[in-house]
Amino acid sequence: MTTEARRAQLLDVGARAFGTQSFDDVWIGEVARKAGVSRGLLYHYFPSKREFFAAVVEQHADALLRSTEPDPALDAAARLRASLEGYLRYVQAHPDGYRALYRGATSADATVRALMERNMDRQARRILRDLPPALRRADTELAVRGWLGFLVSSCLAWLDDPAIPGDALVDLWGRALGGVLLTPGADVPDSGS
Amino acid sequence: MTTEARRAQLLDVGARAFGTQSFDDVWIGEVARKAGVSRGLLYHYFPSKREFFAAVVEQHADALLRSTEPDPALDAAARLRASLEGYLRYVQAHPDGYRALYRGATSADATVRALMERNMDRQARRILRDLPPALRRADTELAVRGWLGFLVSSCLAWLDDPAIPGDALVDLWGRALGGVLLTPGADVPDSGS
Repeated sequence: MTTEARRAQLLDVGARAFGTQSFDDVWIGEVARKAGVSRGLLYHYFPSKREFFAAVVEQHADALLRSTEPDPALDAAARLRASLEGYLRYVQAHPDGYRALYRGATSADATVRALMERNMDRQARRILRDLPPALRRADTELAVRGWLGFLVSSCLAWLDDPAIPGDALVDLWGRALGGVLLTPGADVPDSGS
Repeated sequence: MTTEARRAQLLDVGARAFGTQSFDDVWIGEVARKAGVSRGLLYHYFPSKREFFAAVVEQHADALLRSTEPDPALDAAARLRASLEGYLRYVQAHPDGYRALYRGATSADATVRALMERNMDRQARRILRDLPPALRRADTELAVRGWLGFLVSSCLAWLDDPAIPGDALVDLWGRALGGVLLTPGADVPDSGS
C-alpha cells in the first residue's frame, strides 16, 4: 500500500471510531487492529490520538466545504438548493466522518477548536458573500451563524433517525434559512449602507 | 463559609475558567488559586477536572431549563416570547456558564455527552409538547432540534459580538422557529394522525 493510500485507509477507520464513540472511549490499539496495522505504524502516521482525531476532523471539514461549493452558473435559489443537496450527499456518503466532525468534535483541544471555528467562519462568509445586498440587515450574520447550527443539529438528528426523505430535509434547511433571511426583523435596521 | 456556599463559589470560578478556555487549558491549581482555596479543598468538592467540568455543565443546563419554563397562564405566542426572553436573561446574567455549557462542552467525555443529550432532549420535548396539533408534521421534531442548534449558535455568536440589541435577538429566534414550523414543507405529510 502506498503511503497515501495507507493514510486514507487509517483516516477511514478513524472516522468510524471517532464517529461512533466519544473521544475518551476510542482506543488506538483497537483502531490499529481494525485497520490491520500495528500500533507503531498508526503512531508513525499520527503521533497521538489527538492528532489522529484532528486529521479526521480536518479531512471531513475540508471535503464537506468542497462538496457544497456554490455553482456560479446557477441563479441564487438553484445555487443554494444545489449546495444543500451536495451537503446531504456528502453526509449520506460519510455518516461516520460527519458525526466525528460535529458530534465527536471535542473542543477540549485548542487545535481542534480553532479548526472548527475556522470551518464555521468559512461557511458563514461564503453564504454572506452570496447574499443579495437587499437582504443584508444588522442581524444577517447572526442569522447565518444560527442557521449553520440548525443545519448541523437537524442533520445529526436525521442521521440517527431519518424520519423524512432526504429531499424533505433539504427543503427544511431551505425554509429555515428563508425564514430568517427573507422576513425582516421588526426592529433591525439594514446594515448594507 | 458553609459547604453549600463554598460549592457555589467554586462552580462560579469554574464556569469562568471553562467558559473562557478550552478544557485542556484549564489548570485546577490556577482555579483553586483564583477561588482562594487549596488544590486539596477543590479536589475535596470535585474529585477530578472532568467531574468539576460536568458539575459546571449540569448546573447551567438545569438553571437554563428552569429559567425558560413555559408559563401556562400565557397564550402560545406570548408563552414562547416569555421563554425566549428568560433564555436571554439567563445568558446575559451567566455568559461564562453559558459558554462553558455549549462551547466548552467536550463530548470527549461520555458522561458530559450524555448530560448534554439529555438536556437537548428535554428542551425539544418541552417545545413539541407545547405545539398545537395542527402544526405537527413529519419534519416537526427535526425542525425543533435544528432550531435548538440555531438558538445556541446564534447566542454564542451574539455573546462574542452583540451586533444587535437583545430584543432583536429574541425576535430572530422567534422568526427562525416560525419559519420552520408555520410554513409547511412541500413534500412532508402531517404526522398527527
